[in-house]
Amino acid sequence: MNNYFSSDFTIGILGGGQLGKMLLYETRKYDIRTHVLDPNPQAPCKISCNKFTEGSLMDYDTVYNFGKQVDVLTFEIEAVNVEALEALEKEGKTVYPSAQTLRKIQNKGVQKEFYESNGIPTAQFKRYETKQLLTEAIVRKEHSFPFVWKSCEGGYDGKGVSVIRDDEDLIPLPEVSCIAEEMIPFKNELAVIVVRNPKGDVKTYPVVEMEFHPEANQVEYVICPARIEKTIADKARTVAKKVSESFEHVGILAVELFQTHNDEILVNEVAPRPHNSGHFSIEGSFTNQFEQHLRAILNLTLGSTKSKVGSVMVNLVGEEGYTGQVYYENIENIMSLNGVTPHIYGKRETRPFRKMGHVTIIDEDINEARRVAEKVKQKIKVISK
Amino acid sequence: MNNYFSSDFTIGILGGGQLGKMLLYETRKYDIRTHVLDPNPQAPCKISCNKFTEGSLMDYDTVYNFGKQVDVLTFEIEAVNVEALEALEKEGKTVYPSAQTLRKIQNKGVQKEFYESNGIPTAQFKRYETKQLLTEAIVRKEHSFPFVWKSCEGGYDGKGVSVIRDDEDLIPLPEVSCIAEEMIPFKNELAVIVVRNPKGDVKTYPVVEMEFHPEANQVEYVICPARIEKTIADKARTVAKKVSESFEHVGILAVELFQTHNDEILVNEVAPRPHNSGHFSIEGSFTNQFEQHLRAILNLTLGSTKSKVGSVMVNLVGEEGYTGQVYYENIENIMSLNGVTPHIYGKRETRPFRKMGHVTIIDEDINEARRVAEKVKQKIKVISK
Repeated sequence: MNNYFSSDFTIGILGGGQLGKMLLYETRKYDIRTHVLDPNPQAPCKISCNKFTEGSLMDYDTVYNFGKQVDVLTFEIEAVNVEALEALEKEGKTVYPSAQTLRKIQNKGVQKEFYESNGIPTAQFKRYETKQLLTEAIVRKEHSFPFVWKSCEGGYDGKGVSVIRDDEDLIPLPEVSCIAEEMIPFKNELAVIVVRNPKGDVKTYPVVEMEFHPEANQVEYVICPARIEKTIADKARTVAKKVSESFEHVGILAVELFQTHNDEILVNEVAPRPHNSGHFSIEGSFTNQFEQHLRAILNLTLGSTKSKVGSVMVNLVGEEGYTGQVYYENIENIMSLNGVTPHIYGKRETRPFRKMGHVTIIDEDINEARRVAEKVKQKIKVISK
Repeated sequence: MNNYFSSDFTIGILGGGQLGKMLLYETRKYDIRTHVLDPNPQAPCKISCNKFTEGSLMDYDTVYNFGKQVDVLTFEIEAVNVEALEALEKEGKTVYPSAQTLRKIQNKGVQKEFYESNGIPTAQFKRYETKQLLTEAIVRKEHSFPFVWKSCEGGYDGKGVSVIRDDEDLIPLPEVSCIAEEMIPFKNELAVIVVRNPKGDVKTYPVVEMEFHPEANQVEYVICPARIEKTIADKARTVAKKVSESFEHVGILAVELFQTHNDEILVNEVAPRPHNSGHFSIEGSFTNQFEQHLRAILNLTLGSTKSKVGSVMVNLVGEEGYTGQVYYENIENIMSLNGVTPHIYGKRETRPFRKMGHVTIIDEDINEARRVAEKVKQKIKVISK
């Protein structure tokens, strides 16, 4: 067994954003050395890691040379040079999640085909190598409107996804490979955080529910536990576990799911890393997703995924119409509400819709947490002055 | 209201040890800038703060010049130059806890007299300016053996405290001012973490209990909540609150108490900062003591002091007979037990009895947490190889 604690053993993290920053709380707690690579010299991870390297996550040489210096390599963002990870693995470097797993997830076409060939329930889809091929298929009436268009590569945080309702909607789509997916009229959008270590131990967290704004169609609250029947929750956890095992994933995997009107559970997509939908676990769970990720990639025993209390998570995103030095209006105000903890990611500059932080609201009674969350949502504004 | 979050507002922390390190998790969570002063260039706070200054905490100029650069000054250790704090306050700098409060606590003789004049229950004592005066009092039979000797200045972590049972025990005592205190045959040793902000809002955490090893007479477990009657717990919290208010303390105050055989509550001593007896709150409480300290010194609304679950804390101290590069034997082993979180402070070198970390064990059922804690205690060893 390696000696990870207060030793020279070093974890490399590709990406220095808020997920990396929250992972660093845990490496600090265990006094495990870290190196972080990020292109942004003002990355939230700049402090708290033992060494920070400024550089591109997509550049082969940069990632390869960074990886050579560490004992275990992980990432907090999928958009990294996977060829470099493969080369490092060939030389015996430990990379978790593995390059092979990441390859199956990075490209959404490959990801969807993987579900199909592994018997994992997912919405029907077709894959098109070019926009031209998609357009031809529509002309041939192989797709009826509406459908969901997803770029195969590079999409995240809602980018690279569009609902296509008619011919007009096709026009702005970029010339990239894509999938066209059946639009699922779901009852609930759910997510399950799964953790798996190299030994193959696997655990799931309680199901979380995304509650949408009734008009804006945007996720407003991530609620743990989801307010659904136990049979549905069990089914969702079983599917999520199967996804992690099929990918032979190591670390935290966030599995986003649809609960259809027939109570089917379909996999929407996955993120092979700690995820927004698992932030509730920092205050809510026996073991938070970042500590759990560390335990997994170091092949330690996984921690309990039980909840201590109910939790609701609200994202703090930049208000429309404000760009510049950030100001968190009414933050002192929401901190005076029961069970409220803001997490500020450490980005100096706000921009419309930029993820600037999140707020967790906990309570023994999930309905009370939900009520407080509404007040939080109404009060706090991420603006600039 | 100041803008603390993602701004240039800076907190200065005197002391860069494990308490400072755990405080930095919270400043990072809120993205509040920090400067840390510590004489040790390998201090656990060296990373995670925005600026680290190596220098003496007892040197007037060093502390004064450090304080000039920050917006609010606090400390994680009492042994700091209080004259420098006074000078900074005179110039309008915010220092919490205040120099005046620290003055009343730093010297144990002054502290005891403060309890007496404020009607706070405490063991009877006499104060002696020199060892000679103490010895003379004993010759005159003004003290019967046994009694507790405490150095007025500089004692912490059990240093500067001795039980004096006969004339022999007097010989090794240093030539310093001291108090001689009635020895209390207590039923329980308890502690209450109190938090108070400048507005005067004050909250107490549930009472914790120190469970001693039956033979070694050393604290083995800090248990929250204490396994005592509610009336006693309420009395302890009331006394602790009064102590904080009497000192006009701002921030976290740890109040150590004796529960006598007659169920009296006596104040033993206090620490005007986050404290070992409050570490349970990181996993166990709605608001941990470090976040609570920040909220207090920034004059924000205090967080809830309720517990999410029961918790037991075990200290990790260097084993006797080992000095050198630390090795945490069986740490992977204890991490496989339910609800166990080790905290490794980040000191490379172990020494006998050096505080190297702590372990928190949580469970809905405090008795189960206590059982797991025993296994933790038996397994983990802080050694060098």
